[in-house]
Amino acid sequence: MTTDAILLTPGPLTTSSRTKQSMLRDWGSWDTDFNAITARLRQGLLRIVHGEGTHECVPLQGSGTFSVEAAIGTLVPPGEKGGHVLVPVNGAYCQRIAKICKVLGRKLTTFEYAEDAQIRPEDIDRLLAKDPSITHVALVHCETSTGILNPLHEIALVVQRHGKGLIVDAMSSFGALEIDARKTPFDAVVAASGKCLEGVPGMGFVLARRAALERCEGNCHSLAMDLYDQWVYMNKTTQWRFTPPTHVVAALDAALTQYFEQGGLAARGGAYAKNCRELISGLAGLGLRSFLPAAIQAPIIVTFHAPASPAYEFKAFYNAVRQRGYILYPGKLTAVETFRVGCMGQLGARGMAGAVEAVRDALQEMGLELANAE
Amino acid sequence: MTTDAILLTPGPLTTSSRTKQSMLRDWGSWDTDFNAITARLRQGLLRIVHGEGTHECVPLQGSGTFSVEAAIGTLVPPGEKGGHVLVPVNGAYCQRIAKICKVLGRKLTTFEYAEDAQIRPEDIDRLLAKDPSITHVALVHCETSTGILNPLHEIALVVQRHGKGLIVDAMSSFGALEIDARKTPFDAVVAASGKCLEGVPGMGFVLARRAALERCEGNCHSLAMDLYDQWVYMNKTTQWRFTPPTHVVAALDAALTQYFEQGGLAARGGAYAKNCRELISGLAGLGLRSFLPAAIQAPIIVTFHAPASPAYEFKAFYNAVRQRGYILYPGKLTAVETFRVGCMGQLGARGMAGAVEAVRDALQEMGLELANAE
Repeated sequence: MTTDAILLTPGPLTTSSRTKQSMLRDWGSWDTDFNAITARLRQGLLRIVHGEGTHECVPLQGSGTFSVEAAIGTLVPPGEKGGHVLVPVNGAYCQRIAKICKVLGRKLTTFEYAEDAQIRPEDIDRLLAKDPSITHVALVHCETSTGILNPLHEIALVVQRHGKGLIVDAMSSFGALEIDARKTPFDAVVAASGKCLEGVPGMGFVLARRAALERCEGNCHSLAMDLYDQWVYMNKTTQWRFTPPTHVVAALDAALTQYFEQGGLAARGGAYAKNCRELISGLAGLGLRSFLPAAIQAPIIVTFHAPASPAYEFKAFYNAVRQRGYILYPGKLTAVETFRVGCMGQLGARGMAGAVEAVRDALQEMGLELANAE
Repeated sequence: MTTDAILLTPGPLTTSSRTKQSMLRDWGSWDTDFNAITARLRQGLLRIVHGEGTHECVPLQGSGTFSVEAAIGTLVPPGEKGGHVLVPVNGAYCQRIAKICKVLGRKLTTFEYAEDAQIRPEDIDRLLAKDPSITHVALVHCETSTGILNPLHEIALVVQRHGKGLIVDAMSSFGALEIDARKTPFDAVVAASGKCLEGVPGMGFVLARRAALERCEGNCHSLAMDLYDQWVYMNKTTQWRFTPPTHVVAALDAALTQYFEQGGLAARGGAYAKNCRELISGLAGLGLRSFLPAAIQAPIIVTFHAPASPAYEFKAFYNAVRQRGYILYPGKLTAVETFRVGCMGQLGARGMAGAVEAVRDALQEMGLELANAE
C-alpha cells in the first residue's frame, strides 16, 4: 500500500501513468526531435496565459525557486543600477523572494501582513506612491505555506498604473487559476513543471513580457540563471543553453498534452475546486477546521488546524495516513500547529473521498475521534 | 529506427531500461522513503572518490553547469574578500568557468593553451609562485569539447604544495576515470547525473572537502545555488532545501546501484576504454582521423576531423547516421571542422561495432567512401 501512495502534497504530486511513461525514452539534447518538444512546450505555456505575440516563455533547469531567483536576477537591475523591489509578505514564499532580493543585492522594501490576511491592492498603491524609487513589485499569487489566494488582477492594475514592473510567483496557481496576459498586466509570471500542470519536478519557466525582457541584457548575477541569455540562445539555436533535464521536459510535454485534451485551465481549476470542497467538508465532518476562511482559500492546498488533543503528533498522524496510501504535507506556520493537504494531482479512482476516509481511519487508530462538527 | 536511437553523445546518453523504469513512481519530497534515497546517493557518490569521512556530497538541482557555478560561488570568496581564481584554459568548458568567475565577480586569471595541448603542472606551479593572491585553481579534468584529459593528480599536488584550493570540473570523467581523495587533494569535485554514472540529466553534485566547505557561509552570490546552505539544511533535515527533481534522483540512485553491481569505476572505465579503442580503430578503418593523439585522449568522447570532401556536410551526415539508429554530436572547435562521438552509455547488443557500421553506411550513402587509412 505504501509503495504507490498518493501524494496530497503541493508538488511533487501524483502524475498520470501516461506522463511517467513518457520518460521511458532517452533524448539527445541536440536532436531536432527534442528541440521540437521544447518549442511545443514554450508555445503551450504561453497559450495558457494568452501571451502569444506579447510574451516569451523561457524555461529553466532546477526547481521553481531557481526560476523565481532567475526572474528577480534578470528582470530587476542590480541595486547600484536602481533596481528596487517591493515585496508584500503574507507567507513563507513571499519571505523567500525577499531573501532572494537580499542575497542578490537588489534593494528591497517589504510590507508585512498576518498569514491569514490577503495582500491589499490599496496598500500597494500607497507604498508605490510613497516611494517612487521602487521599480518592481514581486507578488506570490497563491501562498503554498497557507493556501491563501492574493488578488493578482487588482494588484497588477495598480502596479501598471504606477508604471512599475510586476513579477508573479504563480508556482501553486499556474494552470489552475486564471492569469490572462491580455487583461492582467505583468512583466513575469513564474511557475514550475511539477505543480498544477502535473508534470514531474525538475524545471521551471518564466513567462516574460517581451518588451521587458529585451531590456535585461547584463542584469543577471548568475551565468546559469540568466533568462536573457537563455532566451536569446534558445531563439537562435532552438536548444537549451546548458544540458536540459530531457526526461522532465518530455514529461511536462506529455502532461501539457493531457491538460489541453482534458479542457485546459477551466477543467483543471474546476477539478481542484471540487477536490478542495470535498476535502474541507469531509474533514469538517471529522471535526478538523481549515485555517483560512473560504473566501480567501485557493483550491490548491488547504491548511488545517491540528486536533487539539495531547494524543496528536504530526509524525504519527502522517504515518497512519501513509499506511492507508496517502501522503500528507506538514504545516509551515510558526505560531499555530497545522498540517496541509494538497488538492492537486491524480487522486486515484476514489478521489478525495478516499483521502478523507484515510484521515478518518488514522484519527480513529490514534484514539482521536473528534466531535462531529456538522 | 529513429525512435529509440542510441545516443553517442556525452550526456544525455542512453540509460539502461532499469534506470528509466525507476522513474515510474512519484515520490513525496518530504517522505522518509525519498530521503533515504538522497542519503544513499550521497554516500555512494562519496564512496567513488573514497571521500567518506573527509568530504561531503552536496547534490544540486539543475544541469552540471549549475553545480560548477555553485562550487565557484560557494567555495571562492567574492573578489572584495580576496577570492581569486586561476583558470588554465584548453577548451570550451574551461572558458565557461572563466565566464562564471567574471559574472560572479570573482577575480580571475586565465592561462591559455591550444585545444590539443594538455594543461601542464609546471605552468600552474610557476603561475601560483608568481601571484600569491591567487586563492583557487579551477581545472577541467576531461574537456568535453575535445575529449582531452588533463593531468589532475599532478596539478592537485602542485596546488596543495602552494596551499591553494582546487576545484575540479569532473563532468565527463567522474565515475569512469579515477579520482581518489586519499591521494589527490581537492576542495571540490563537480559532476552530474547524466554522464558516466549513466543516470538521466537534471541534477549535479559537488564533493567538497568538509574543512573547506565549513568556511563558506555567506560566500554565495545566489540563494538557490548556495552549497553551504544546501549542505547544512540537508544534514539537519535529510531533505533538499528546495523541491528536488525526484524522478531524476531516483534514476541516479538506480543507475548507481547498477554501477556498483557491475564493478564500479574499474569496470565502467574499462568498458568506456574498450568502446573508445573500437571507435577510433573502426573509424580509422573508414579513413576518419581523430583530432587528439592517443596519449592525451580520454576514453569518454572522441573528436574526429570531418572528411575533407566538398560532399561532406555535418547535418546531412548526422541525419544519415541517425536514420541508422545512432545520434552523433557536433564538433565544438572553431578553427577545424570536426564531429564528436561519445563512448558512454548503453550502446545496445552490437556495441560500438554497430555505431561504426552506421557511420560507414552513412558515408557510403553520401558518396564519401574514403581511402582506407590502415
